[in-house]
Amino acid sequence: MPAKKVSTRTAVYYFGDGKADGNGNMKELLGGKGANLAEMTLVGLPVPAGFTISTEMCHAYEKAGHKLKPALKQEVQQNLAKVEKVMGKKFGDADDPLLLSVRSGSRASMPGMMDTVLNLGLNDISVEGLNAKTSNPRFSYDSYRRFIQMYGDVVMKAGAGLEHDPYHLILENYKTEHGYKSDLELKVKDLKAVIELYKAETRRLTGSIFPQDPLQQLWGSIGAVFQSWKTRRAQEYRRQNKIPSDWGTAVNIQAMVFGNMGKDSGTGVCFTRDPATGEKRFYGEYLMDAQGEDVVAGIRTPLPISRLEKANPKIYRQLYGYCRKMERHYTDMQDLEFTIQQGKLFMLQTRVGKRTGSAAVRIAVEMVKERLITTEEAIRRIDPDQLEQLLFPRLDPKAKREAVTTGVAASPGATSGEIVFDADQAEELGKQGRSLILVREETKPEDIHGFFAARGILTSRGGKTSHAAVVARGMGKPSVTGAEAITINLHAGTAIIGDHTLRKGDVITIDGSSGKVYIGEVPTVEAEFSKELETLLQWADKIAHLKVKGNADTPLDARRAREFGARGIGLCRTERMFNSVDRLPVMVEMILAETTEERQSHLDKLLEMQREDFTGLFKAMSPYPVTVRLLDPPLHEFLPNILELEEELHHARQLRLLVSDMDGKSQTALEVIDPDVRERCEKEIRSIHKKLNHLLTRGIGEDYILRKEKILAKVRALAETNPMLGHRGVRLGISFPEIYKMQIRAILEAAAICRKEKIEIHPEIMVPQVCTLQELIHVHSFLKELHPEVEQAYGVKVPYRFGSMIEVVRACMRAGHLAEIAEFFSFGTNDLTQATFSFSREDAESKFLALYNRSNILLDNPFEVLDQEGVARLMKIAIEWGRKTRPGLEVGICGEHGGHPGSIALCHSLGLDYVSASPPRVPVARLAAARAALARSTSKPAGKSAPQKVTATRPSRKANTRKKAVAAKK
Amino acid sequence: MPAKKVSTRTAVYYFGDGKADGNGNMKELLGGKGANLAEMTLVGLPVPAGFTISTEMCHAYEKAGHKLKPALKQEVQQNLAKVEKVMGKKFGDADDPLLLSVRSGSRASMPGMMDTVLNLGLNDISVEGLNAKTSNPRFSYDSYRRFIQMYGDVVMKAGAGLEHDPYHLILENYKTEHGYKSDLELKVKDLKAVIELYKAETRRLTGSIFPQDPLQQLWGSIGAVFQSWKTRRAQEYRRQNKIPSDWGTAVNIQAMVFGNMGKDSGTGVCFTRDPATGEKRFYGEYLMDAQGEDVVAGIRTPLPISRLEKANPKIYRQLYGYCRKMERHYTDMQDLEFTIQQGKLFMLQTRVGKRTGSAAVRIAVEMVKERLITTEEAIRRIDPDQLEQLLFPRLDPKAKREAVTTGVAASPGATSGEIVFDADQAEELGKQGRSLILVREETKPEDIHGFFAARGILTSRGGKTSHAAVVARGMGKPSVTGAEAITINLHAGTAIIGDHTLRKGDVITIDGSSGKVYIGEVPTVEAEFSKELETLLQWADKIAHLKVKGNADTPLDARRAREFGARGIGLCRTERMFNSVDRLPVMVEMILAETTEERQSHLDKLLEMQREDFTGLFKAMSPYPVTVRLLDPPLHEFLPNILELEEELHHARQLRLLVSDMDGKSQTALEVIDPDVRERCEKEIRSIHKKLNHLLTRGIGEDYILRKEKILAKVRALAETNPMLGHRGVRLGISFPEIYKMQIRAILEAAAICRKEKIEIHPEIMVPQVCTLQELIHVHSFLKELHPEVEQAYGVKVPYRFGSMIEVVRACMRAGHLAEIAEFFSFGTNDLTQATFSFSREDAESKFLALYNRSNILLDNPFEVLDQEGVARLMKIAIEWGRKTRPGLEVGICGEHGGHPGSIALCHSLGLDYVSASPPRVPVARLAAARAALARSTSKPAGKSAPQKVTATRPSRKANTRKKAVAAKK
Repeated sequence: MPAKKVSTRTAVYYFGDGKADGNGNMKELLGGKGANLAEMTLVGLPVPAGFTISTEMCHAYEKAGHKLKPALKQEVQQNLAKVEKVMGKKFGDADDPLLLSVRSGSRASMPGMMDTVLNLGLNDISVEGLNAKTSNPRFSYDSYRRFIQMYGDVVMKAGAGLEHDPYHLILENYKTEHGYKSDLELKVKDLKAVIELYKAETRRLTGSIFPQDPLQQLWGSIGAVFQSWKTRRAQEYRRQNKIPSDWGTAVNIQAMVFGNMGKDSGTGVCFTRDPATGEKRFYGEYLMDAQGEDVVAGIRTPLPISRLEKANPKIYRQLYGYCRKMERHYTDMQDLEFTIQQGKLFMLQTRVGKRTGSAAVRIAVEMVKERLITTEEAIRRIDPDQLEQLLFPRLDPKAKREAVTTGVAASPGATSGEIVFDADQAEELGKQGRSLILVREETKPEDIHGFFAARGILTSRGGKTSHAAVVARGMGKPSVTGAEAITINLHAGTAIIGDHTLRKGDVITIDGSSGKVYIGEVPTVEAEFSKELETLLQWADKIAHLKVKGNADTPLDARRAREFGARGIGLCRTERMFNSVDRLPVMVEMILAETTEERQSHLDKLLEMQREDFTGLFKAMSPYPVTVRLLDPPLHEFLPNILELEEELHHARQLRLLVSDMDGKSQTALEVIDPDVRERCEKEIRSIHKKLNHLLTRGIGEDYILRKEKILAKVRALAETNPMLGHRGVRLGISFPEIYKMQIRAILEAAAICRKEKIEIHPEIMVPQVCTLQELIHVHSFLKELHPEVEQAYGVKVPYRFGSMIEVVRACMRAGHLAEIAEFFSFGTNDLTQATFSFSREDAESKFLALYNRSNILLDNPFEVLDQEGVARLMKIAIEWGRKTRPGLEVGICGEHGGHPGSIALCHSLGLDYVSASPPRVPVARLAAARAALARSTSKPAGKSAPQKVTATRPSRKANTRKKAVAAKK
Repeated sequence: MPAKKVSTRTAVYYFGDGKADGNGNMKELLGGKGANLAEMTLVGLPVPAGFTISTEMCHAYEKAGHKLKPALKQEVQQNLAKVEKVMGKKFGDADDPLLLSVRSGSRASMPGMMDTVLNLGLNDISVEGLNAKTSNPRFSYDSYRRFIQMYGDVVMKAGAGLEHDPYHLILENYKTEHGYKSDLELKVKDLKAVIELYKAETRRLTGSIFPQDPLQQLWGSIGAVFQSWKTRRAQEYRRQNKIPSDWGTAVNIQAMVFGNMGKDSGTGVCFTRDPATGEKRFYGEYLMDAQGEDVVAGIRTPLPISRLEKANPKIYRQLYGYCRKMERHYTDMQDLEFTIQQGKLFMLQTRVGKRTGSAAVRIAVEMVKERLITTEEAIRRIDPDQLEQLLFPRLDPKAKREAVTTGVAASPGATSGEIVFDADQAEELGKQGRSLILVREETKPEDIHGFFAARGILTSRGGKTSHAAVVARGMGKPSVTGAEAITINLHAGTAIIGDHTLRKGDVITIDGSSGKVYIGEVPTVEAEFSKELETLLQWADKIAHLKVKGNADTPLDARRAREFGARGIGLCRTERMFNSVDRLPVMVEMILAETTEERQSHLDKLLEMQREDFTGLFKAMSPYPVTVRLLDPPLHEFLPNILELEEELHHARQLRLLVSDMDGKSQTALEVIDPDVRERCEKEIRSIHKKLNHLLTRGIGEDYILRKEKILAKVRALAETNPMLGHRGVRLGISFPEIYKMQIRAILEAAAICRKEKIEIHPEIMVPQVCTLQELIHVHSFLKELHPEVEQAYGVKVPYRFGSMIEVVRACMRAGHLAEIAEFFSFGTNDLTQATFSFSREDAESKFLALYNRSNILLDNPFEVLDQEGVARLMKIAIEWGRKTRPGLEVGICGEHGGHPGSIALCHSLGLDYVSASPPRVPVARLAAARAALARSTSKPAGKSAPQKVTATRPSRKANTRKKAVAAKK
């Protein structure tokens, strides 16, 4: 809402004693701080009086060659007179001087970027008056000392161009000369001496005398604040935060009040509700005869606000009333600062209080019940990122800890456990009920049993989309990946982080939400799924246009997704089913098969397993739809790594000699064998020795090596230069039709079994990596062949839908054609992002993405935040062309972005029907979907979360951000 | 031009004796053959009379339930009467019967797909008449026998559903019974006996008697031809060639003439110009008292046509006149068939004569000079693919050869040489002047010196875009890649192809134009660049809108490109410069450098080399522009392969033991060492042994291993999962700014040197792998920093332009932004295709593209033929958006597609400014560019080359194919 237009004649806006020239909506003219002070005053809070010089004067000051015009000075003096009157003090008074603060305040928050002058009005005379009033000479002279320093620095630029702060040097030298170690040892006479040294140094450095005239001090300070708008750091901050340079800053001049003016003075902060739990109770702390700094410094322990009720019921009632009033006024929990000056209560600041995620949810839901806000507003209040905290175990905020290194925050949640370096061991120890963290350089599909056994996964390589990250997220287990500072030496059985050498069994803690790694156990707090959250998400579902589904590969996952509120499975990755311990060997045999018959017999075994999987999934998700993606990864992903195999084979061959011929000669061999090899392989030698001996006793010793050789040959034959662009997805399905046919049959048969039991199901078959209609036709022909067969065999009608992943760029270009057969599209934005940027997911994050982010070449990691200007444009084209062919075409997204709030907003604006996210992110997605529908999300780039601002609670501008986000700018 | 609309009343179109109801434009109604016969007749050629039943009757026949309507029969009989009159013979006449041929003839050529009946009109009586006229009973009865067989098969369907042809079986059985080995041994009585057996078998199989009534024969044959439109093979052919099923076939009924009716009869073929050389001379062969088959069978040697001049000057003059007439009529070289029947000359067929590439060029150019055709028409006449033949050495067409295997035709041209398996050996043997073919599984950058030494490259892995293919094409050396039937065993030093085991030194021949591999030396014919071709291409340059540049990496390449007519260098790949033998080590040191200083010292060396390279390039290409692409490949491409390094290291370590400790103990070690390892490594052991010994004598034995370990560590650190999407191009340039800065400096300094010598130059700097404007800005800042420095140092103004490769999909989406800085775009369609399809160039061709082509999932290999419906759409968007920002934006293409004619046509229609091709393809591209500008290229898909048709010489339809090609269909 733009500020009410005010005549530009007025340059200065007074506030105080319940009256104000401005108001809270006038941020453009008065800056955020000025508008807020005016508003607080108007609402009736006892704000120390003051006035604001408008932002327009900033330009005028600049234009006038850094001079304040006489008219402005006159207005300031008129307003100063009002302040003096209200505060009952005179500026520069010798007995009880009015002191002022002079602060900047622009339309957007620029914390710490511009200058401030406090205690303005002190001079050699008025400092005595302050002393008389406070009976605290140390405070009074120290305030004067600080003022000189601040004024000298900010206004007179005494330190300009010097390497060290000249005032700081004087103080340090003085302390050294007098043998003081701390500022606290300075006595009043010392302070007086330092003041004189300061004044002399100011004169020496600037050629001017520190001004004793309070008005001269005031003009200087106002000019300095205006000038601070143009400092290099302020300009740099504006550039980074995209704040226009022509906004300018306002200047806020306000009477200072002091809480340390005796027993009837004090200071404190309070919250209208508990910021930790959200409970509706008046909460806060205060200290009498103290300043704000004393509370912060922790020298004295503040008292709970309830004590004030007994000590000073009148002030307490006033304060409580103001708090309630402000909460009602801003309709949000407030964080207020107050000062009692000689028995009079002043409110210094009120703002929306920061709060924990669970408090935010509870406050929002309770405020709806109190009819303070609407359900829509409640939804708008909760940042989806904040919600994430609640849904995963996190480190106890109270626990002390120091991270030893930080990797990629790959799968959220925190957990502790003993280090284990090997999936087999993890499985073994896991059976003994031990808490484990699997620590690897990187993980492979064959480590999957280690994932099941471990509580968390830590790797030294790979990003958010590495195997470890994706699998851990899918399972909802915490994971930190790419912690490159960790050197893992499998042979030595150590993980070295800096000076720490960790071994198997050592306990560590990982925080997958921050990427941090800790040595030892750090206590954690469990995830919460409160009834308030449940209520909030139900409201969200009513508001959202986007449906939220879950990514789930097993019935267990499906049940979890459903508990989190998923309305269907948007992506079931069938390859995950092949990765479990009992199935991988069958899969490997199938790949190694040399004849079609042999392959078919393994496929028959897999068929049974998959049929059971799908039956479970369909039942768990009934009556919602389940989208099954046919096999996607290249076959070599199911086979061991080529380098490991070669090493294994080499050792096995070396060992054959020793094991099969255990006489003196082999003993010699052991002695003369390359010591390097011997050392490196000692562990493997023992393990293979055992295995070989075992095999030998069964008389099949050679088989081990032969089999490894066979696998190696296959791995070599299947090897690809760029597997991500390789023989996978539908390409595989067309090359090995028997695999896709097996999967399609398993889906249809599972559906038939459910239908026989009268369970409502909606199976959807999805083809990955499609780039042309012909591929879809090809796979569809398998379906057309098998469907009637299955229906006949089971004697029931089997429903299904057939659709395409859209993850290849060409599929976007051919979307109009694909929609001829595809009944739905599901954007695989991981792969689509990869192909659009030509960035390999696995390489980019570790090689150059960090540099790109640091150098502002890319603001976000496109694998986390859906790229609005590239990937989303392709999606837009695909949706448009697809729906032109098939108006009812259902469109969803099943990439990692489906769980990212900013990306969900973009999906909403692109007109998608659903997003699919990993189960623990389903609630986040539900909230984000609702917020997107409210269409009041700010139009800032999807990746940056907004800093919480006072004005966030105001009805925000109704800019049609949805429209903006869709518009394909060039 | 659509056929003149003819009233549908007429079903039958007569031709004969200079008159015809139809004409050459009526292909829709009369089919190609019918229209052609009418046209020949109208022009005045003595064509045997006949008539054509229109294609519309084909539908009518089908609709009428496979019956000929009485009205049609009546029309046929009326026309038959005309034919009898003109030919002076009666149909079914006992003394001198008129025999007919009944042939199909549709609008599009469908060779061999439909049925034909010859010798129609023969029966037990007329065969005697034929015998009387020809005095050749063997011919007569054999004609009758063949007729029965043809009629029985085609019309009566006697063989339908049988595995073997029943007539063939009868003949074979008869011959066996009589002890005949060949048909030639059959005597007249045998033929008569077979005729009876045929008739009996026909009756047995069909239940009907072979009809003696000529009219009944005629009705049956006409029906059979109509029906043959609907056979499965005809339908399949139409489906594949996209011929509409509703076109239907016409039926051509024509009097048969015989060249074997005595000494005054004969037959022959002639060409209006020499089809081998294009020389303008009357050329042909004939035989008296013979049929066409006799000429083909080669039993008798035909006489040169010049002999006819002496033997029968009248006929010769007639024939010569007709030939000249037809050439003028069709304004193209004609291939004519004629028959002399008892002193009367009949012209049976005329069509555009097939010719060699060089003949095509000569004929076209000479016809322009004879004012027969325009230069535009000349351009249109030459198929760019045909031109390619001329530009590379090819196998001597006369040489006998049999290919042992076929791989991918990776780099055109044919050559022979001795096999060599190793680049080092190639270099050594090359110095001795030996002709070599480098045979490898695949090649790597470190094999580059082997490329220089070899005449051709043969690999068993990789496609058209493999390293071997790309480098060979760049050098213009023949290459066959991906010849998977070849098993190369480096240890054994053998290449096994089927039963052949080839060793080093064995001679083979490879044909990179066909992909064929031959054992032994096959003679080759050198490339030709005739003055006619030069003329043709000059005309082409005037017509073309697209400029043609060359891809060249060295001054030598640049000179070659220029000789081929390139007007600039569109792509100089700077990494190629690093690959030469003297530079790779510097590059490797630069990569291995551990400090910035160390790296800079190697870069300084490279700077000098690059400066020299660029100076040479600029000079060679002056005054045309030279576009230099900054470093593109990932650094690990310059380092050795990880597996090889590991093996090398392993052996080196094993050997250390033996070499450094040559006593009894190590001897034992050699004995007990894993025999498997020992055997595998024998060769390496010897080689490393030698190297190590050499090193040891210099006292630096350990260094070898240490260095290898260092390289291995670096290779491991740089390793990428998907290098094609990895740390390369501008990503590398931003990560290692010193590399790009060195290159930019080298370019600017080279330009300055040229400018000092007053040489006109236009250097262009191009950034690869760009995906966002920020990357361009980043690199541009290097340029802005270095440019004034260089100008000042050399004291001259240095011109340059700055542009971007468009090879990342996102660059297409951001083209509008990129054009803010980029002064030109160059599409890297290799990478763009890869990213658009998510196909890895290196994997797709060997893993599944062949299957995709076979299964019609993709009609073309998109790495050869620019993908119109995916990649070109992205290009279209990028061009549109780029030119919106910068109207004068120059746009080119430098991918492999820049040398492919169909893709060049597409580039033309997309509005590109230039294409850049490898030097030997520059002439092909020049021609293709001109043809594209003529905008009369047919609208068939870019990948399939048109079969040469009679009508190709006609003014073709002015369909706006350009518009069609651009229209982005969905």
